[in-house]
Amino acid sequence: MTSERWQQITYWPLIIASLAFIIAYSWQVIADLGGTGYTLARIVMFLTWVVFAVDYVVQLSLARPKGPWFRSHLFDLAVVVIPALRPLRLLKALTVIHVLQRTAGAALRARIAVYGAGAAFILIWVAALTVLEAERASPDSNITTFGDALWWAFVTITTVGYGDYTPVTTWGRIIAVLLMTGGIAVVGVVSATFASWVLEKAAAGADDTGEAATRGQIRALAAQIDDLAVRLGQPGGDPPSSDRPSTP
Amino acid sequence: MTSERWQQITYWPLIIASLAFIIAYSWQVIADLGGTGYTLARIVMFLTWVVFAVDYVVQLSLARPKGPWFRSHLFDLAVVVIPALRPLRLLKALTVIHVLQRTAGAALRARIAVYGAGAAFILIWVAALTVLEAERASPDSNITTFGDALWWAFVTITTVGYGDYTPVTTWGRIIAVLLMTGGIAVVGVVSATFASWVLEKAAAGADDTGEAATRGQIRALAAQIDDLAVRLGQPGGDPPSSDRPSTP
Amino acid sequence: MTSERWQQITYWPLIIASLAFIIAYSWQVIADLGGTGYTLARIVMFLTWVVFAVDYVVQLSLARPKGPWFRSHLFDLAVVVIPALRPLRLLKALTVIHVLQRTAGAALRARIAVYGAGAAFILIWVAALTVLEAERASPDSNITTFGDALWWAFVTITTVGYGDYTPVTTWGRIIAVLLMTGGIAVVGVVSATFASWVLEKAAAGADDTGEAATRGQIRALAAQIDDLAVRLGQPGGDPPSSDRPSTP
Amino acid sequence: MTSERWQQITYWPLIIASLAFIIAYSWQVIADLGGTGYTLARIVMFLTWVVFAVDYVVQLSLARPKGPWFRSHLFDLAVVVIPALRPLRLLKALTVIHVLQRTAGAALRARIAVYGAGAAFILIWVAALTVLEAERASPDSNITTFGDALWWAFVTITTVGYGDYTPVTTWGRIIAVLLMTGGIAVVGVVSATFASWVLEKAAAGADDTGEAATRGQIRALAAQIDDLAVRLGQPGGDPPSSDRPSTP
Repeated sequence: MTSERWQQITYWPLIIASLAFIIAYSWQVIADLGGTGYTLARIVMFLTWVVFAVDYVVQLSLARPKGPWFRSHLFDLAVVVIPALRPLRLLKALTVIHVLQRTAGAALRARIAVYGAGAAFILIWVAALTVLEAERASPDSNITTFGDALWWAFVTITTVGYGDYTPVTTWGRIIAVLLMTGGIAVVGVVSATFASWVLEKAAAGADDTGEAATRGQIRALAAQIDDLAVRLGQPGGDPPSSDRPSTP
Repeated sequence: MTSERWQQITYWPLIIASLAFIIAYSWQVIADLGGTGYTLARIVMFLTWVVFAVDYVVQLSLARPKGPWFRSHLFDLAVVVIPALRPLRLLKALTVIHVLQRTAGAALRARIAVYGAGAAFILIWVAALTVLEAERASPDSNITTFGDALWWAFVTITTVGYGDYTPVTTWGRIIAVLLMTGGIAVVGVVSATFASWVLEKAAAGADDTGEAATRGQIRALAAQIDDLAVRLGQPGGDPPSSDRPSTP
Repeated sequence: MTSERWQQITYWPLIIASLAFIIAYSWQVIADLGGTGYTLARIVMFLTWVVFAVDYVVQLSLARPKGPWFRSHLFDLAVVVIPALRPLRLLKALTVIHVLQRTAGAALRARIAVYGAGAAFILIWVAALTVLEAERASPDSNITTFGDALWWAFVTITTVGYGDYTPVTTWGRIIAVLLMTGGIAVVGVVSATFASWVLEKAAAGADDTGEAATRGQIRALAAQIDDLAVRLGQPGGDPPSSDRPSTP
Repeated sequence: MTSERWQQITYWPLIIASLAFIIAYSWQVIADLGGTGYTLARIVMFLTWVVFAVDYVVQLSLARPKGPWFRSHLFDLAVVVIPALRPLRLLKALTVIHVLQRTAGAALRARIAVYGAGAAFILIWVAALTVLEAERASPDSNITTFGDALWWAFVTITTVGYGDYTPVTTWGRIIAVLLMTGGIAVVGVVSATFASWVLEKAAAGADDTGEAATRGQIRALAAQIDDLAVRLGQPGGDPPSSDRPSTP
């Protein structure tokens, strides 16, 4: 079996496992489960972990060569091995971002907006869950309900930072730092997308005389010169087509 | 009647209805109206709602085809159906942004500055009104006057976030999240506009030898080659004008 | 006398008046002057006001036509007429920004950095002075020393917004809003300048085959075709030089 | 000995001295050393200072001409002369940034990400150490452990600014202002890097007819015209190769 075939087969199972994980995790944290509910949620989360662990092992065994694959999938390994990082597995679902490869202009910006908003929302949701789980146990903490945690996550990722709710535990602060970093990335992506739009608009003047010459124009020019050469009816007979600017 | 004709006819009535709505809403919230004043303000707001609902229904009935129009006007539907979202109707007034289509360079940046400042101010004003209405009822809230609400809105949209005033109700926090998102957009647009200016300046060197070739240059070149072909006085007689780079 | 001549003559006097104003104002606010010191500082500030008022009147009388000049100098009028806005006069000193007109690339970025830092520092200094003057009188305020005011101004313009010091008076908050707006502009300019640098670096690949064709290349090409035409030794004698792409 | 030779010889010693400095300084501040430990850490820091001072003096003596070198190394002088600024010496280690000179596109962005993250982390670490040292002595301060100082530094550089921890001493606030400035630079660099990525993607459409003509295309065109000239078999004999657009 090839690596590509495996990825095709596991595409939907992995998405379903991701959804099962986030639902079980959200349910456990928000409802502050105990007893049977807690056990059930942990079982679901354990099973999704098995799915991801198996996927990691199989992908590693199929990869040729293994070295580069291992180095470029350190994040996957960390998520499988360190329990506390497991919620971040959800961010993997965003690797569909390679869909961006074949679009340009306005369509690209629309996709960046959709995927960016999706990534930001998953990040906010997971951060709110993880912080609530970490902070709830601390007597000094003021993040005690999921509503507060979600509000805190929004205030943090937008870099507004009121300070009405702040994490006090070490693990809560590590989550916060990841979220702030995500916030800077969000600001950066939004600025970049607007910049692309403004630059495109600024370049689109009514009169194109001063604009950059296009490749289409050059090809037409080359055809024109070719035509001239044909008219000259050169007896040499070897057509200069290999010199024609076809590729760049 | 066509869709365009309808939009021309309703242009001014809709702007007047928007203004009537914002004035009535501002008056109701800022003066914390009761009795007759409250009833009057609600009547004005109800009438403007009728205007927008009728406009929505007529536009939907005139649209050909209806499907795409419906999907691209979900925001309009939400504003008509959900009472709490109605203040956001004001943002519609900014769709005049299509005026941006035909400008470029410095003129484009000037317009982006004007419309961006306008949009930010409407957003700040409406957010301050809505948050004040939501928070005033809560005993834990510290946003109790319109001055405080406006100050809070400015502090939030600029992502400064002192935290001296923060919403505590669910609805107040939803407004705040929308405002923070608007703040990131404002930062993005400002960055993008400056970027466009810096890039234009950075490109404008005294010596243009190394700059991108222009379409005008290519056209002149094509004319030159054409001229050459004419001089060759080819008896074939079919002019190569179809090959000339006229469009791209 | 022409408008240009007047501006040349008044260049240094206006800069000196600006410096005298800021020194007198800083001294009055920081030392919290009373008695003779206060009177002296107010006299210096009044004299600089006379200088700016005279300059405004003379420039208006010299302007041809007056209408456009008046409309594009509303800021100058506001500064002369409204006492509270007078400190903002200092920002005028930054109009030397037109020096940016003739530079490009790395030199342009260096100048933007220098002028941007200068503008930000004047804004911070003037905001700290004005806020201190406005807040000192209020019993609820916690901005009571110039050190605190300066710290608050830095925290605000960088959009960090700790909230350890916040203005509580209306005038203090108006200054704060101006400063926050300045902060967003600073972030925008910094982002834009870095973007210009990254884009220039990203474009500077070793192989230029795929880069935009240059105007120099097109001119050389035109000369080449011309040369060809000359060799064809056309008897018609009218050279096709008018078609040559010289200008665009 | 030349300046380049000196820099080659001292490359590793200076990096080792930087590391020794940061380890000794971190150890002294975090462990709040007294007695022998304090003395030992100060000796290590004094020795690294000697290394940097010697390096500065030798580099100045080797520089030709001295004037420009002196003016472009004022930061080095300040770090050697002012004790309090010494921790900033660590930032010098980032001058390896000149490695960025020969890369472009995705590789450039990857390097900017790596060096930017490195610079941000050194800045955060040094700021946390310096602020802790400055604030620990003040009775009003709430930054009393290294964990709090590190958390404060992250909250500040991302411009989130909760305000749960804020410096109250003058020196602590100066460090904070430097860190905030660094934060704006970080946001700017992140925005710029994303902008470069978005713009590259937006330009990479499937159909290149409308894209800028490339230099490769122009060269091929020039060769085509040349070929035409050769076919015309001009007896004049002087080939027009000097007119060919080879360089620009």
